[in-house]
Amino acid sequence: MSNLLKKVGGEGLTPIGQIGVPALIERITSQGVHRQASTRLGVGDDAARILSLTNEECVVTTDLMVEGVHFDTTYFPLMHLGYKVVVAGISDVVAMNAVPRQILLALAISAKYTVEAIEELYKGVHAACAEYGVDLVGGDVTSSTGGLTLSITAIGSAPAERMVGRSGARKGELICVSGDLGAAFMGLNLLEREKRIYREDPGIQPDFGAYEYLLQRQIRPAARIDMAAVFDRLGCLPTALIDLSSGLGRDIAALCRASGVGCRLYEDRIPIDPLVHELATHFHIDPTLCALSGGEDYELLFTLPASVSEKLEGHPDISMVGYITEAEDGLVLVSHSGQEHELHRRMYTPEVQ
Amino acid sequence: MSNLLKKVGGEGLTPIGQIGVPALIERITSQGVHRQASTRLGVGDDAARILSLTNEECVVTTDLMVEGVHFDTTYFPLMHLGYKVVVAGISDVVAMNAVPRQILLALAISAKYTVEAIEELYKGVHAACAEYGVDLVGGDVTSSTGGLTLSITAIGSAPAERMVGRSGARKGELICVSGDLGAAFMGLNLLEREKRIYREDPGIQPDFGAYEYLLQRQIRPAARIDMAAVFDRLGCLPTALIDLSSGLGRDIAALCRASGVGCRLYEDRIPIDPLVHELATHFHIDPTLCALSGGEDYELLFTLPASVSEKLEGHPDISMVGYITEAEDGLVLVSHSGQEHELHRRMYTPEVQ
Repeated sequence: MSNLLKKVGGEGLTPIGQIGVPALIERITSQGVHRQASTRLGVGDDAARILSLTNEECVVTTDLMVEGVHFDTTYFPLMHLGYKVVVAGISDVVAMNAVPRQILLALAISAKYTVEAIEELYKGVHAACAEYGVDLVGGDVTSSTGGLTLSITAIGSAPAERMVGRSGARKGELICVSGDLGAAFMGLNLLEREKRIYREDPGIQPDFGAYEYLLQRQIRPAARIDMAAVFDRLGCLPTALIDLSSGLGRDIAALCRASGVGCRLYEDRIPIDPLVHELATHFHIDPTLCALSGGEDYELLFTLPASVSEKLEGHPDISMVGYITEAEDGLVLVSHSGQEHELHRRMYTPEVQ
Repeated sequence: MSNLLKKVGGEGLTPIGQIGVPALIERITSQGVHRQASTRLGVGDDAARILSLTNEECVVTTDLMVEGVHFDTTYFPLMHLGYKVVVAGISDVVAMNAVPRQILLALAISAKYTVEAIEELYKGVHAACAEYGVDLVGGDVTSSTGGLTLSITAIGSAPAERMVGRSGARKGELICVSGDLGAAFMGLNLLEREKRIYREDPGIQPDFGAYEYLLQRQIRPAARIDMAAVFDRLGCLPTALIDLSSGLGRDIAALCRASGVGCRLYEDRIPIDPLVHELATHFHIDPTLCALSGGEDYELLFTLPASVSEKLEGHPDISMVGYITEAEDGLVLVSHSGQEHELHRRMYTPEVQ
């Protein structure tokens, strides 16, 4: 991580104008391999061609990541940014319980980005494609007047009967999450702190020491493609499913709105890593708030029938955090002390420290 | 057209922060109807669900449009911008000879855009969807630090044997274009002129008079979905096909590169509307250059076997502009006077006047 704060640009680097966009696209896509049988034609034509798999339905999703809003390249390595934007796209496919298969990535690039910087970004894109077995099949590279914007389109497929939307949650069902929450937000806090230190003294190299896990959750998140198999082993599909990109608070609200239900969440059930607790205390942030409002954890939030509750006790991948109520009961958080709060009152966006 | 230069923002308008992004998305997508049998699930979940049509393959394409690079909202009406971005996406699907079926549109919006401005933009999006029979099935709305960025993803389908790529052109084949070229670029010139006049005296309203056609080609372009039927009537598919979004010069170069061939284009065969000639002369621009380098015409460029040449004489939709040669013959333009030029020497980007 010692090169985290390395500057983009500098001597010996190539302005994009020097080689032109077609040559740049050639460079960044030449290492593309096709892993998916459904990829008929990838980068290089007006559109990619994708074969439908027998008895499967397609899912398609699109997301934007904007410099200065979603990332800060002064401390976010471009390779990790490329990796993360692919994970963000794939996570939306996984949130339908479908299998991610192809991505398209479009970039708007300002003049400060060199050929080498964009190649670095695509190293991360290709690494994520290899990690998740998806194919990069298209995109666009254009100019921007203000920084870097990335547009990811992700495509997946699955048999229709395996797909799960947001709207199927019913009263009495269990609300569950995979993994732990809030760590990506604490990683962001760490990076922001190092940025301030670096600005005051560029000679100091960052040392994330014991907090490496939090940093990894921010700069190299994982999409939970493994959860489909976990559901299979449980013997039942979720009734509703969404990925945790905006924070537990906003994402449970979206799930409840789509399903026409309410919820009751228990603060002491929310899985939060001890490192998040430790650093949040140090930064004077409420750890629960990191989980509710931090976002970018890319874990899954889902509902399951109450009948499987026994199978979930001590489950390594799944935490039960509450249950579904009727819409008129609202969205409720039961605090550590047993008090009931309206969820949105605990959901103001936490300030990065 | 008298409201072309109307300012965005002002009294009585609603900042997006006042209603929030979920409510904004609700407003702009509520009028969405599904016209395509393949649309199983549209806006509102983590991803759209699309059913594969029997015996058809999918095509997917993505494009970015960036404020200050691709458009200038001081004179480009937002409704037309919404319309145009959909046409740009559809045109890439048409360029595979596939039928456009769904789009996803993601926006990054800076604080200067109001709810009303985004609703205006989506009026154009919905109008284009209705015009071309496609469904808006997803997207994203996020913040931007610098203006407006639109990311369009377009999906289409067709039987595999009907699809046409860029790489099938062979020596001796005819190079053809649909419609006429250069008008969108002259429309841009007109708008830039009116912007200068408006800046000098905001009281003057623009009068595009006889040049309305050029303006329409810039602000309300058409994707040539009708050409598939024209090919059917000719009794043969193109051997290679690309849409004319970057200008004839760059697009024929892309087609030739993909096909591994050269070309010989005839300047006096390039279809240019008399209004383009007239205004280009007035602005001291070479009309051929408008066709070669102007771009945004969204016509089709394609190659056909020489055997159909008789059927193309006097064809209402198709102009033969040259023929395919061997790669080592290069890309050649034969001028009005019969002189041969290397194409790229005529292709420098024309300055907007």
